[in-house]
Amino acid sequence: MRLSRYFLPTLKEVPKEAEIASHRLMLRAGMIRQESAGIYSWLPLGYSVLKKIEIIVRREQDRAGFVEMLMPTIQPADLWRFSGRYDDYGKEMLRIQDRHQNEMLYGPTNEEMITNLFKATARSYRDVPKRLYHIQWKFRDELRPRFGVMRGREFLMKDAYSFDYDVAGARRSYYRQFIAYLRIFSSFGLKAIPMIADTGPIGGDLSHEFLVLANTGESSIFCDKALIGQSIPGDNIDYEREDLEELAKAWTGKYAATEEKHDPYQFESEVSPDHRLTARGIEVGHIFYFGSKYSEPMRAFLQTREKGQVPLQMGSYGIGISRLIGAIIEVFHDESGIIWPESVAPFHVGIINLKQGDTGVDSLCERLYAQCLSTGIEVLYDDTGERAGSKFKNMDLIGLPWQLIVGPNGLSSNLVEFKHRLTGAIELLSPESAINKLVHGR
Amino acid sequence: MRLSRYFLPTLKEVPKEAEIASHRLMLRAGMIRQESAGIYSWLPLGYSVLKKIEIIVRREQDRAGFVEMLMPTIQPADLWRFSGRYDDYGKEMLRIQDRHQNEMLYGPTNEEMITNLFKATARSYRDVPKRLYHIQWKFRDELRPRFGVMRGREFLMKDAYSFDYDVAGARRSYYRQFIAYLRIFSSFGLKAIPMIADTGPIGGDLSHEFLVLANTGESSIFCDKALIGQSIPGDNIDYEREDLEELAKAWTGKYAATEEKHDPYQFESEVSPDHRLTARGIEVGHIFYFGSKYSEPMRAFLQTREKGQVPLQMGSYGIGISRLIGAIIEVFHDESGIIWPESVAPFHVGIINLKQGDTGVDSLCERLYAQCLSTGIEVLYDDTGERAGSKFKNMDLIGLPWQLIVGPNGLSSNLVEFKHRLTGAIELLSPESAINKLVHGR
Repeated sequence: MRLSRYFLPTLKEVPKEAEIASHRLMLRAGMIRQESAGIYSWLPLGYSVLKKIEIIVRREQDRAGFVEMLMPTIQPADLWRFSGRYDDYGKEMLRIQDRHQNEMLYGPTNEEMITNLFKATARSYRDVPKRLYHIQWKFRDELRPRFGVMRGREFLMKDAYSFDYDVAGARRSYYRQFIAYLRIFSSFGLKAIPMIADTGPIGGDLSHEFLVLANTGESSIFCDKALIGQSIPGDNIDYEREDLEELAKAWTGKYAATEEKHDPYQFESEVSPDHRLTARGIEVGHIFYFGSKYSEPMRAFLQTREKGQVPLQMGSYGIGISRLIGAIIEVFHDESGIIWPESVAPFHVGIINLKQGDTGVDSLCERLYAQCLSTGIEVLYDDTGERAGSKFKNMDLIGLPWQLIVGPNGLSSNLVEFKHRLTGAIELLSPESAINKLVHGR
Repeated sequence: MRLSRYFLPTLKEVPKEAEIASHRLMLRAGMIRQESAGIYSWLPLGYSVLKKIEIIVRREQDRAGFVEMLMPTIQPADLWRFSGRYDDYGKEMLRIQDRHQNEMLYGPTNEEMITNLFKATARSYRDVPKRLYHIQWKFRDELRPRFGVMRGREFLMKDAYSFDYDVAGARRSYYRQFIAYLRIFSSFGLKAIPMIADTGPIGGDLSHEFLVLANTGESSIFCDKALIGQSIPGDNIDYEREDLEELAKAWTGKYAATEEKHDPYQFESEVSPDHRLTARGIEVGHIFYFGSKYSEPMRAFLQTREKGQVPLQMGSYGIGISRLIGAIIEVFHDESGIIWPESVAPFHVGIINLKQGDTGVDSLCERLYAQCLSTGIEVLYDDTGERAGSKFKNMDLIGLPWQLIVGPNGLSSNLVEFKHRLTGAIELLSPESAINKLVHGR
């Protein structure tokens, strides 16, 4: 992509309302723009990251045996009256009347709708297990939206739902997501720790939230340090055959709690002093096993061989996709800007033309740009007339993993600067070696 | 995908409220489910088609030089007061009050928001041309939603916007989309004809709608038959260099009009009798050049060298993505069900196991299934315990382009039935030749 054709309205001023790094950087880097309180447009750079996260989440949900579908944003209020949750959400629920005065709402989550949908199609224990997910915009009318996409009102969420006829099956579905979540967060280079959690308005009796370690996190966390280095199940994981609950014990068997659940006595008795970690964390995912909380009131029953009609055993599993971008930036940035992990970087390399209009520099840049495109390297070419200093600053700000800096000095000795955004290290390389490194040596 | 793990709640009964083929078939094939009037859940089969259409639209928008972003679904009402359109939409606009009694709405389109967003970043003629698009859910509170996804209330739309500083540039942007639209619709095997159109509530003075020929279409169309066979610009189209308005003349130079714009006298004088086509059509896309209709009232101006401050010259370009699925089905179906064009088929082949539980049949099916997966053929394997007749009916109903039918009779002579859904033709092939045909011979 040529920057001159792209739409990247970076900001020089730090907006006053932005209190945390990710919010400031997303605004400065031209990733998002606020349209009203807690409601954002995702500009091309931000949307590109959002899509990359979606792709990884989708890949891992598919791998874990969940099937994608899509529910609408607008739901009938009556659904929520059946479940008894219509009043639970209070003013956070955006309530709407349509032209016929039907009461509707903008879905903050989808347990009711999916239960209702599923019960219309399933009659017998043979119709389960089923596991579904969708990635859809949700709305929570926060009293004071803030922290940018970390606590917005309109936000993108992956929510998955599992349907089984007994507790054992439901637990197997639950631990599929437990393992899938570990894999998802580690794909972004995040260290996410699962912690026993309260179930809040979703309900149920088994729940973990996944917290990412970050100094600016909203929650205090207390855990066994060993959880940080724990190795994550690899691509060869077999969700059908392995005992996932057993596998999860490497995490669930060690102490980890947020402030609300923290028990100092247990912490000290279970965790040796040199293993006690106290830190800040950001919640990025939450999984729930809630059994028949929705299926009983909503009359979603299955016929079984031995027990007659039983209510569906359900779980739900959420990841805040838009929020996750904030969390990734909180972890990966420095004073110059964002430092994207390769897996979600909007482009892998930025080409900086230091002397736009100079025939030699222009033509080398064009050649490098064409080579990136033809070898499948995602590239942003700064072909604008801005001065060098401003190009450097912007490229650092938007945080692409690599930079190719092309100027008249290097050109005379056939060299370009190859810069690693994370370390700041710069190598002088021939254009060919630089491309080679991008293709093979990253 | 194994059908036993998929979620495909097909219906035997034709729902009463479904008046047209696409609506009936989408409900019967388990593609969608109505959640409230005109609001649908997209079940896995339907969602898979929706995603494939999105991918093709995205590819062609990128190729035409438009950059993807995403605007939110909820907009502030004030934006629409600035443009003067707040009242134009009447009751079709879903108006919402948030918890602080701010007036909001669920966006039916995005001209206001993008104009406002763009004007905050662009100052000079050097900041244009810019061309942006997004694919987002919209809402129009139709008085009587009907025809399934063809006239729903919550619907998925691709809308693009172009920004130029003069009319010549704006026309070039307009004809980029004109050509891109021809390419998009032809990717789905549709014959879409561009017709001069009224601009309606969007406004402006140059506009084409694209209509797909279908007997069940809502509009009468009158055109020169030559438009049907016109060859579409290929993948080598160069949107930067070619004179696209000139290229478009192959279409714009021939008579084509919907009922509202039809002039029988002109039709008869311009089109020879054997070239006159009168038919029915479904609108699938609409493009508008509206100049400064939004930029003037919203004060979106650019500094130019010669004319001082001038208002942005804009266009907008819509495709109803969810509606398009209805149109595709209206064109591609028979009395047994849907017949997907290969480009958007949810799977390319369905494997039918005629005797689930028979060791030989099961193991051949498993082998074919594994070969499809390893060669990248998207496959749905009916591994359920349903009887053969019901499996045949369902597979025809959901309309995958190819079927592999495996039963004990064929097995004894190492043959499977290879069925083409469109023609109904069945070949008896060895399993190896069948896979070979799927990989190479389609």
